[in-house]
Amino acid sequence: MTGDPENPEREAVAAFLDDTVARLRDWLAIPSVGVDPAHRADMDASARLLADTLRADGWPDVRVWDEGPALPAVYACLPAADPDAPTVLVYAHHDVQPAGPLDRWDHPPFAGTLVGDELFGRGASDDKGQVAMHLLGVRAHLAAIGARQPAVTIKLLVEGEEETGSPNLGRLVDDHAADLAADLVVFSDTPVYAREAPTVCTGQRGVYAAEVTFVGGQSDVHSGRAGGSVPNPVTGLARLVAALHDDRGRVRIEGFYDDVVEPTAAERADYAALPFDDDTWLANSGGARGLAGEEGWSTLERVWVRPTAEVNGFHGGYTGAGVMTIVPARASVKLSFRLVPDQRPEHVAEALRRFVAAHTPAGLHAEVVDVGDGVPPYAVDVAHPAVKALHEAMETAFDQPVRFSRTGGSGPAAVLRARLGVPVVYLGATLPDDRIHAPNERVVVSQLGRGAEAAAHLWRLLAERLP
Amino acid sequence: MTGDPENPEREAVAAFLDDTVARLRDWLAIPSVGVDPAHRADMDASARLLADTLRADGWPDVRVWDEGPALPAVYACLPAADPDAPTVLVYAHHDVQPAGPLDRWDHPPFAGTLVGDELFGRGASDDKGQVAMHLLGVRAHLAAIGARQPAVTIKLLVEGEEETGSPNLGRLVDDHAADLAADLVVFSDTPVYAREAPTVCTGQRGVYAAEVTFVGGQSDVHSGRAGGSVPNPVTGLARLVAALHDDRGRVRIEGFYDDVVEPTAAERADYAALPFDDDTWLANSGGARGLAGEEGWSTLERVWVRPTAEVNGFHGGYTGAGVMTIVPARASVKLSFRLVPDQRPEHVAEALRRFVAAHTPAGLHAEVVDVGDGVPPYAVDVAHPAVKALHEAMETAFDQPVRFSRTGGSGPAAVLRARLGVPVVYLGATLPDDRIHAPNERVVVSQLGRGAEAAAHLWRLLAERLP
Repeated sequence: MTGDPENPEREAVAAFLDDTVARLRDWLAIPSVGVDPAHRADMDASARLLADTLRADGWPDVRVWDEGPALPAVYACLPAADPDAPTVLVYAHHDVQPAGPLDRWDHPPFAGTLVGDELFGRGASDDKGQVAMHLLGVRAHLAAIGARQPAVTIKLLVEGEEETGSPNLGRLVDDHAADLAADLVVFSDTPVYAREAPTVCTGQRGVYAAEVTFVGGQSDVHSGRAGGSVPNPVTGLARLVAALHDDRGRVRIEGFYDDVVEPTAAERADYAALPFDDDTWLANSGGARGLAGEEGWSTLERVWVRPTAEVNGFHGGYTGAGVMTIVPARASVKLSFRLVPDQRPEHVAEALRRFVAAHTPAGLHAEVVDVGDGVPPYAVDVAHPAVKALHEAMETAFDQPVRFSRTGGSGPAAVLRARLGVPVVYLGATLPDDRIHAPNERVVVSQLGRGAEAAAHLWRLLAERLP
Repeated sequence: MTGDPENPEREAVAAFLDDTVARLRDWLAIPSVGVDPAHRADMDASARLLADTLRADGWPDVRVWDEGPALPAVYACLPAADPDAPTVLVYAHHDVQPAGPLDRWDHPPFAGTLVGDELFGRGASDDKGQVAMHLLGVRAHLAAIGARQPAVTIKLLVEGEEETGSPNLGRLVDDHAADLAADLVVFSDTPVYAREAPTVCTGQRGVYAAEVTFVGGQSDVHSGRAGGSVPNPVTGLARLVAALHDDRGRVRIEGFYDDVVEPTAAERADYAALPFDDDTWLANSGGARGLAGEEGWSTLERVWVRPTAEVNGFHGGYTGAGVMTIVPARASVKLSFRLVPDQRPEHVAEALRRFVAAHTPAGLHAEVVDVGDGVPPYAVDVAHPAVKALHEAMETAFDQPVRFSRTGGSGPAAVLRARLGVPVVYLGATLPDDRIHAPNERVVVSQLGRGAEAAAHLWRLLAERLP
């Protein structure tokens, strides 16, 4: 990756890579677990460290936004020399998931442990690694063009609430509309399809989550006393969950599929051309024993372009050791729905309420509580010139043909699209087997280098290509 | 209740009732919570106090059995003067349920608080109160016949493991077969139907409990990563639970009803003649909002003579605050089945395993674990002369017609029947709204007096009636 006179971006990336890893290790040592109020000070420290690093790199305008209830976000701007150059806003996040079961980590989750080409730690891939990738990309871009200012104005928004559903991002964007104004958003919180098959991501699913509770009596009752004579809320809720899908794996909530845009033949062909191996997919899916899902769609289609209804948790009655022969008083289920364009969380919320009302047995009281506001789905317009520039930048950086893919996860791309009124494209270089949200999260350092090089190429290309 | 020259048993009960309450209060102060190993010393103290009381009452043979792993049981024998008189074994228990939420008790659970005719405390009704009732009954019997030895040989077995399913009772009975030999067992751990409708209980349901676990992957997986492509064990288990009953409330496990003995027309008429009020039933069933159950049967029939499949608890995935968008790796459900004659726990265990195998979706692994050995159901032969004597004793003591009833709970009557080879009848005087297993358990003192009088009559009658 060094000494290529045709590719000065690559040369510069190689020169700065060790330093980038050293900085990232320090950052991973800060447990910026956004979901846990006990880590509020760590969120502040994480934001400060990023801000200090940006200033050290010469970004002239760096700010930590921590107004109101929101966890701190970092904003920065590095203006182009040409005042007429286009402006790009990079979106990423510095909050991380909880570490989860410590005994299943081979390295400390909050240390940043380098083993060969892998850097282990919570947030290494999701998403501090991709922020580090961008800082490296900007340094490489400046080095490659031999200037102190980039070819496009680069703005950075690294929020602190992505893992909790970005509840304040819309307000944050509205409050800082002038600072964040841009011609394009580059969204960096997605992986490539695979190490051997780098891709440009063109969409994320949305999500809507709710908790449904069935209440029977005011208290549990001895099943010898009443068992068989009063409704059991756990049984009732199990029947509701069982009714969520038909035998072909389709969601049976009326109206659920009304707004679903089916993938084009070209997209389906693109996905079918990607290397796919059942066993690898299962291994990367928590060691699942077999595939399942909606009939008529491939695994990748099920995860990328089809919506789902998933039970994330179910609780009711006595769940300790042994037996307690009761009819429980209540049961709750946490449901989440992955959504695809053009489904809307608020429509699914209404449809779920109708479904619950229709499936509440006599003698039980039902409650449906939304968990967060939901995240709308988003898909890129692949005909946009920025997507072509991005595709070219990726092919140059990865030295091979690059296809299109999507990701089954969710992110606030639709929020940024709606609030800022400009296209959003995805630039990511992490891997699907980085174990994000799981023990032993890692990032592959050479992938970060490739991604940084792609970003460096992109800034150069966008200066020519963006209208 | 005093000064009736026609009913010397009643006069004697009245004379000893205050002393009986005073002794019971001391006994209720000992928290003999059998299920909690921290209360092991209290179990011993409880057994010792009972043994000392029996000795003070002149029982010549009193022993505490605490061999092996079993919690201590108390055995006592008071021989009849006539060596050819029949022998009766009274069964009861001195272990009690945990107190549960202390803030929902109006009186200390382990003090024995007398308020008018009610004595509050854990175990007041279930089952120390009915043991105290028998000691009072024996004193009244001896006073009424003016003798120091009873008309029948009375043996007492007060075990310490009823609330944990009597796991060692069978072994205990076998080990002490000669001591426990009797012509009849009087089982005292059931209530009458109602204060205004005293009854003779003629049966208890059995119970079989199991835990069913579905395992998908080795770990939870992010639902954005895999949601829609791998089986969800919570959904699978919910579908199994939903399949347990048809839309008419019948259990759909093949063979489940094979051995069920349907009640006779006379039994159904007897149950239909009992006073019944939906609102009172619901209030006594944890404040349930409505009745439910198997079509074609009344509420009392559903609880007394029909078997059930009940979910006692269900757990899978994330059940904390907020949302965690995962496909869970596993889900577990605790099931218990109330059984009626002639169902057998081991047959239901086999049928459940076949049902689970038939309802395990592809890609999930199923485990079924029995919780305990189960308790067989039991029903009395109402034509037996002891039942007629008992019925007469109850009508005399309660001054009104006495019907037959059953109870939906479970107890080791079938174990005693099988091991000792003699009939078991039920003599109980507590009330269904005594809140056993719940906060504010109480016993109505005058009911204990009526029950003691019934026992005193019974001992006299059995001497004449038993073959």
